[in-house]
Amino acid sequence: MPTTQLTSHVLAERYASETMQQIWSPTTRVVLERDLWIAILKAQRDLGVDIPEEAITAYEQVKEQVDVEAIRECERLTRHDVKARIDIFCDLAGHQHIHKGMTSRDLTETIEQLQIIRSLRYLRVKAVAAVIAFSARTHQYRDWALTARTHNVPAQLTTLGKRLAMFGEEMLIGLERLDRLVENYPLRGLKGAVGTQLDQLTLFEGNSDKVKQLEERILDYLGCSQALGAVGQIYPRSLDFEVISTLVQLSSAPSSFAKTLRLMAGHELAGEGQAPGQVGSSAMPHKINCRSCERLNGLAVILKGHLTMAAHLAGDQWNEGDVACSVVRRVMLPDSCFAIDGLLDTLLTVLQQMEVYPASLERENQHYLPFLSTTTFLMEAVKSGVGRETAHEAIREHALAASQTLRSGKQNDLIERLAADSRLELSRERLESLLSHCQQQTGLAAAQVEQFVEKVDPWRRRYPEAADYQPPVML
Amino acid sequence: MPTTQLTSHVLAERYASETMQQIWSPTTRVVLERDLWIAILKAQRDLGVDIPEEAITAYEQVKEQVDVEAIRECERLTRHDVKARIDIFCDLAGHQHIHKGMTSRDLTETIEQLQIIRSLRYLRVKAVAAVIAFSARTHQYRDWALTARTHNVPAQLTTLGKRLAMFGEEMLIGLERLDRLVENYPLRGLKGAVGTQLDQLTLFEGNSDKVKQLEERILDYLGCSQALGAVGQIYPRSLDFEVISTLVQLSSAPSSFAKTLRLMAGHELAGEGQAPGQVGSSAMPHKINCRSCERLNGLAVILKGHLTMAAHLAGDQWNEGDVACSVVRRVMLPDSCFAIDGLLDTLLTVLQQMEVYPASLERENQHYLPFLSTTTFLMEAVKSGVGRETAHEAIREHALAASQTLRSGKQNDLIERLAADSRLELSRERLESLLSHCQQQTGLAAAQVEQFVEKVDPWRRRYPEAADYQPPVML
Amino acid sequence: MPTTQLTSHVLAERYASETMQQIWSPTTRVVLERDLWIAILKAQRDLGVDIPEEAITAYEQVKEQVDVEAIRECERLTRHDVKARIDIFCDLAGHQHIHKGMTSRDLTETIEQLQIIRSLRYLRVKAVAAVIAFSARTHQYRDWALTARTHNVPAQLTTLGKRLAMFGEEMLIGLERLDRLVENYPLRGLKGAVGTQLDQLTLFEGNSDKVKQLEERILDYLGCSQALGAVGQIYPRSLDFEVISTLVQLSSAPSSFAKTLRLMAGHELAGEGQAPGQVGSSAMPHKINCRSCERLNGLAVILKGHLTMAAHLAGDQWNEGDVACSVVRRVMLPDSCFAIDGLLDTLLTVLQQMEVYPASLERENQHYLPFLSTTTFLMEAVKSGVGRETAHEAIREHALAASQTLRSGKQNDLIERLAADSRLELSRERLESLLSHCQQQTGLAAAQVEQFVEKVDPWRRRYPEAADYQPPVML
Amino acid sequence: MPTTQLTSHVLAERYASETMQQIWSPTTRVVLERDLWIAILKAQRDLGVDIPEEAITAYEQVKEQVDVEAIRECERLTRHDVKARIDIFCDLAGHQHIHKGMTSRDLTETIEQLQIIRSLRYLRVKAVAAVIAFSARTHQYRDWALTARTHNVPAQLTTLGKRLAMFGEEMLIGLERLDRLVENYPLRGLKGAVGTQLDQLTLFEGNSDKVKQLEERILDYLGCSQALGAVGQIYPRSLDFEVISTLVQLSSAPSSFAKTLRLMAGHELAGEGQAPGQVGSSAMPHKINCRSCERLNGLAVILKGHLTMAAHLAGDQWNEGDVACSVVRRVMLPDSCFAIDGLLDTLLTVLQQMEVYPASLERENQHYLPFLSTTTFLMEAVKSGVGRETAHEAIREHALAASQTLRSGKQNDLIERLAADSRLELSRERLESLLSHCQQQTGLAAAQVEQFVEKVDPWRRRYPEAADYQPPVML
Repeated sequence: MPTTQLTSHVLAERYASETMQQIWSPTTRVVLERDLWIAILKAQRDLGVDIPEEAITAYEQVKEQVDVEAIRECERLTRHDVKARIDIFCDLAGHQHIHKGMTSRDLTETIEQLQIIRSLRYLRVKAVAAVIAFSARTHQYRDWALTARTHNVPAQLTTLGKRLAMFGEEMLIGLERLDRLVENYPLRGLKGAVGTQLDQLTLFEGNSDKVKQLEERILDYLGCSQALGAVGQIYPRSLDFEVISTLVQLSSAPSSFAKTLRLMAGHELAGEGQAPGQVGSSAMPHKINCRSCERLNGLAVILKGHLTMAAHLAGDQWNEGDVACSVVRRVMLPDSCFAIDGLLDTLLTVLQQMEVYPASLERENQHYLPFLSTTTFLMEAVKSGVGRETAHEAIREHALAASQTLRSGKQNDLIERLAADSRLELSRERLESLLSHCQQQTGLAAAQVEQFVEKVDPWRRRYPEAADYQPPVML
Repeated sequence: MPTTQLTSHVLAERYASETMQQIWSPTTRVVLERDLWIAILKAQRDLGVDIPEEAITAYEQVKEQVDVEAIRECERLTRHDVKARIDIFCDLAGHQHIHKGMTSRDLTETIEQLQIIRSLRYLRVKAVAAVIAFSARTHQYRDWALTARTHNVPAQLTTLGKRLAMFGEEMLIGLERLDRLVENYPLRGLKGAVGTQLDQLTLFEGNSDKVKQLEERILDYLGCSQALGAVGQIYPRSLDFEVISTLVQLSSAPSSFAKTLRLMAGHELAGEGQAPGQVGSSAMPHKINCRSCERLNGLAVILKGHLTMAAHLAGDQWNEGDVACSVVRRVMLPDSCFAIDGLLDTLLTVLQQMEVYPASLERENQHYLPFLSTTTFLMEAVKSGVGRETAHEAIREHALAASQTLRSGKQNDLIERLAADSRLELSRERLESLLSHCQQQTGLAAAQVEQFVEKVDPWRRRYPEAADYQPPVML
Repeated sequence: MPTTQLTSHVLAERYASETMQQIWSPTTRVVLERDLWIAILKAQRDLGVDIPEEAITAYEQVKEQVDVEAIRECERLTRHDVKARIDIFCDLAGHQHIHKGMTSRDLTETIEQLQIIRSLRYLRVKAVAAVIAFSARTHQYRDWALTARTHNVPAQLTTLGKRLAMFGEEMLIGLERLDRLVENYPLRGLKGAVGTQLDQLTLFEGNSDKVKQLEERILDYLGCSQALGAVGQIYPRSLDFEVISTLVQLSSAPSSFAKTLRLMAGHELAGEGQAPGQVGSSAMPHKINCRSCERLNGLAVILKGHLTMAAHLAGDQWNEGDVACSVVRRVMLPDSCFAIDGLLDTLLTVLQQMEVYPASLERENQHYLPFLSTTTFLMEAVKSGVGRETAHEAIREHALAASQTLRSGKQNDLIERLAADSRLELSRERLESLLSHCQQQTGLAAAQVEQFVEKVDPWRRRYPEAADYQPPVML
Repeated sequence: MPTTQLTSHVLAERYASETMQQIWSPTTRVVLERDLWIAILKAQRDLGVDIPEEAITAYEQVKEQVDVEAIRECERLTRHDVKARIDIFCDLAGHQHIHKGMTSRDLTETIEQLQIIRSLRYLRVKAVAAVIAFSARTHQYRDWALTARTHNVPAQLTTLGKRLAMFGEEMLIGLERLDRLVENYPLRGLKGAVGTQLDQLTLFEGNSDKVKQLEERILDYLGCSQALGAVGQIYPRSLDFEVISTLVQLSSAPSSFAKTLRLMAGHELAGEGQAPGQVGSSAMPHKINCRSCERLNGLAVILKGHLTMAAHLAGDQWNEGDVACSVVRRVMLPDSCFAIDGLLDTLLTVLQQMEVYPASLERENQHYLPFLSTTTFLMEAVKSGVGRETAHEAIREHALAASQTLRSGKQNDLIERLAADSRLELSRERLESLLSHCQQQTGLAAAQVEQFVEKVDPWRRRYPEAADYQPPVML
């Protein structure tokens, strides 16, 4: 009989990609820590600390031997998670040289920042892939006339491409913010127990230049160019807030897009499509639910919960800091990365598979077109010599009546009504011809689409791997 | 070499009790679903649906055979989680009788509500254990004079017991709300795809009495007395909000208690203690950190993140409902239960192990006592015939000066100053005697403690298992 | 030329009722405080404190003379708001007897709790009015068939009355919670600077019975039956959280109802209507926007912001308390009352003015009915001797095709397709007849409506004033 | 008798500066709108639209005649706020030329964005003033040794200047983010009812170049260089989220600073000071409450409530947008500006008036110094030839005992204990000399302060007005 499973990290396992799971896995974390310890060892040696070469070799040889359960056992004895990981690594290597002049937070804050920055870089590629996908769809539907809605009711014509460009452009703003964050994200560095770098300074016998060089070496190793100067035991938690608020901002355009697609599906204008071979609900075969869009909206809500957590931690530092934030960050940092990761893959899937039903678009446009054309009718009547106020009053009267007609379940009869009104002096033929002209009244929609496509181009060039990215098959 | 671990559900594994993990485990869920299906089968049979006895027996015999991974594999094919679980169970039993007249949500909403109510009942016992623990500590320290602080600076005397009673009484309010929620929590029931109970009605050939009886049988089976009447596909998400907001409310008193204990530790007045055998920081042996209190505060922050998620879902129902809430609830419901569960166990641990340093309390009281006694000095001077305004001015003058003295690092010299001021006609002996009287000026603190202890008693009697509850050893 | 207006409290002035504005007005607050001081004066006198009768009379005579600007001026000098209000009142009366044995918080916490409880009672009547209005609409539309939607796409038939009952029943749960809160809300009472009641105890020369009697007298005066026992300078802020989370819960059903009505308006099924004489958008006369529903949804979002504030304060008490919460509560308490007040009036307005277009409902039902009837067709074919799997396969094939047809802008041709398929042996007449039968397949929708109406009745009887309540004309 | 005041916008009136109130005042808004209309009129005229010169002159002459109450009256009739403002302005001018080819949102979104950008620019100066003030204090206290605390208990020495630099550097990160936002903030522009610019295009008879030129002219007029391309009726609400999340981030360092100062006040190490002439609590003259710091923390909580509101709106756009966000933005946008404005002025006030008690700092350092020096003692003993493990065990033993001694209310006796232990071979004189050396063990604290001061310099040069900024006197 199979063994029972006690817990399941549903957000990671069900929604996040394997790459993102890897970044935050317990095993990866141990390896990252060990790599950092070794990098520090080497730098300290190069700067004159007496560290035997064979110790470094010994650490390197065992660094991949990670037994998460053994570490946890050790922690149960020591009640100190970093101490447990030091002891296990030293036991494996048979040496005691790592962690010199370091405090726990020199290790943990740095590794967590490394996981954050790796996640953000990985997400940046996906976000670029998403704006590229928006760009493609936008271009595809550039001229497909669509009844734009405000207050969820028909307002004017637009094009479907323009509607999608609207979300694409919002996403570009989020992407720019993510990009700036990645490029400017500062590390805490090796600052010691209260941030004064006392222990490294002691290790280097008061030579502050060497302390500085050590930190620079480690920044290089980590691939980050910036470090904070004055910090306490911890880096300021407003940095975590900046990260998570950036992810929330990035989720906004996809979330609005998903809601709008759910609305369009309700009108049979479009659907999120299905993977080849996917079977829908067997009970109601006509029903194609926007499950992925709903999921996307749900993942955005989860991010907002993490935002609340991050906002709580920011501005709540007592003195040089404490670990009231510890459990929160253990949850919030990986989980927000899992949520946005799943959200972006869902978005890419929907952008790839979405279906649009042109006949339905056309039917809706025709249904509402007479209303959307009333200002044109007015101008035409005035040109024919009808008094403006007379014409306006007549049109308004008929528009209201036609609107009642529609709601009473009948077809739009505005054209008939106007043609029959002698005040307006507009024949049915003239009205039909004007209507037909109005069908193309989408303003600068197509031009805006082109501008959006152009804005995406530099991103495509900067991140060529994005164009090839394929989201995993969704559960 | 050990296998790597890809994910880890840190909130569950590190902080929650095994019982709570069990309630929400993937395996438990499958068993609960199967039990529900069987209970419905039996009820349908009793109400006249043609269901062969051997089918029921067959389902019962295999219901414990849960292979979570196999179910997940199956879902990967069908893309429908409930369908996968139906197929697997039917395959195991060799029959196809479960889920008659049911829609997926009849199963999933009911099981989730069952997990919620079981969690709440389990948490209620822990919350009662916590107020009992508060009650004991409160009584122990009933008369221990303590310098009460407002704005974090000394204000008047109180007692330590009274300070704890303050948090205990707040916790009682949270407990009462939890208790009412448990007693009044309504289930959605078997309402069908859009809530009209059409499919059960069809199954019973239009006999609405039988539909009603079926639902009552199932409520009985679930141990809940109330069902909602008019629902859609889902129960209203404001119910989830009620659950999580109740948990947040319950976390408030522990959280304020933990912050206050962290403050007291900063003044060396008290500490959260340690488990027997626990070793603190080896680097700084004098340093006893309030790790558990900090953790408690962190867990409360996590709950507030879940609250934001729940608040997002409440009031966001479209028509008869959809599954935009699905991923959110998969995360928020178990995780908020894990967070409050860990929080209550942490609270119980701290209440058991906390240490108070009476000499430090006394030192602080003596340090501030002269200030806290100035109104008494005033009244005494007036009784001796000194003009009220004269006396007031003199005392105020010296209090300000003494306060400066303290801040300049010297001992409080207010008594010396007052004794030396001929305006006041108060001898040093008289002043010392008044001071000594003021040491007991804790008002009705002790009486309030007694009242609190009395309020806890009925809870202790209602939930006798609470008194014996022992929190697990903390990591 | 008119004077400029520097600030405007838009939430109060634009959205809240005058009654609610009154409860929280600066003037009202001053009068409430003075009434409390006078009530305490009288109680103290009755319990033996030497207070001259003419002082009480003098205070009573001037208590309505409120000059908010003068008080603010005075505060600018003293930098202490309560001190300023004491001085002004005493100057007006020409006596100095109020505030004996009291601390600022004895006054301010009590008055704020009084404003809260008055607001909650006032809101309860509006909430009852809203469930009564739901009840009436529910009954009116009890049998109006409606295409229920899950995932925003058609699922099964329900009735419009049932859909509204769904929101009405959710609102009842919120109302019950509000009602329990009002009935159980405990006051802090007169507990002194750190909660030990020391100063009242001193005033009554150590007679704790008199301290108790004084508090009981004041509770009676305030019309509340319950007081907290052990508190600090302040009452626990989780009480504020309970209040605001109750308001958020109460807003959930209206919010879901408003979203659903906005969705229905997008399908021309219903609209929120207009006040008699109201003129819509002049540019697009056919366009009736759900402005009120949108506003309602916006007001619910504001409440969720206040919830975050309240959640921040709960569990953040240091020692006996401080005033880090002060500015938050000055904003959050009145503003959340204004928001829910405006929300309920908006809800009532929409429930009164909403319009439903039966022809549109019917058109939609007809449009989707064939799909909703497929299970019936299947059973009928089987009864006629067709193999189940054969029939199922045929129906599924045609349903998918018909669904494509619909999306390609044509009418639903499922019936034609099925009639033409010889595998099924169902004539067009038979199919039409079955379809016609399916039109009434709304299950127990009507019965659920009746149950909901019955649940509202006790509320109507308990709060007879609710039935007559009329919301103010909306801006 | 004075008139009663019905409402009071407490956040604006009590906490915000007059400048910020002006930016968001109802009167200012009307004037800004009129200026925009006039600027558009002129641009349209220059681009060939037939607009008589005297109309422009007429509008300009009356644009300052703002009667907010009259506009509100007018709105009560039209039920359309923009329509009311158009009518009133046209009536005043005696012309009907404004708002040509515009939709309401062309006006309102633009003005709101203008108010936002003006607020952000104004706040930037205050934020620069704050980092300058941090810089000054940091420099002043650069070398003042202070017992750093982690977990709120003593850990190592630092300097007060370094502690403040920690908050100052965090604030710099927030300031940089604010600065980038100001420089990159894009306007929606004149995009028409659904974003296609149809109506301006019609006005210019299909000449899209002129449409583009009009928008550029208006951007110039508004002093912003960037406009969004593809938008709907509204600009994406994630922009509002970016604004408010930036303000929350900016509030983080001040909030942590204020909490830490409240903690220090509890230890009599420092206080927030008072304005010259300010009188504290008359009842307890020794008590100096951190009212301003508490207020600052409260204002930060309010911002987090606004953040929740903004997060709700982001990602909730339906189609081309609606006004479900309207009431939220009317509250959240000005109120978050008022909150951060008051917060920054409070911060500046505290930074100007704060007091530090060097004797108390010194007393605390002495109290804990022996513990903070144990690693030095160990190394010294080893150098003298004592075995490392022997020495370590002896020191640990005595440290624990001394820590118990402290908690039992006595003085730290670690030195005596160590001197008396023959295992260590350290004389009392040697120990005292080592202790005295350790007093300066503040690592690179002073160097970090210098680096922080240097980082502030470019800001001081870029915004010279910041150095002179004086916060208003606080209530």
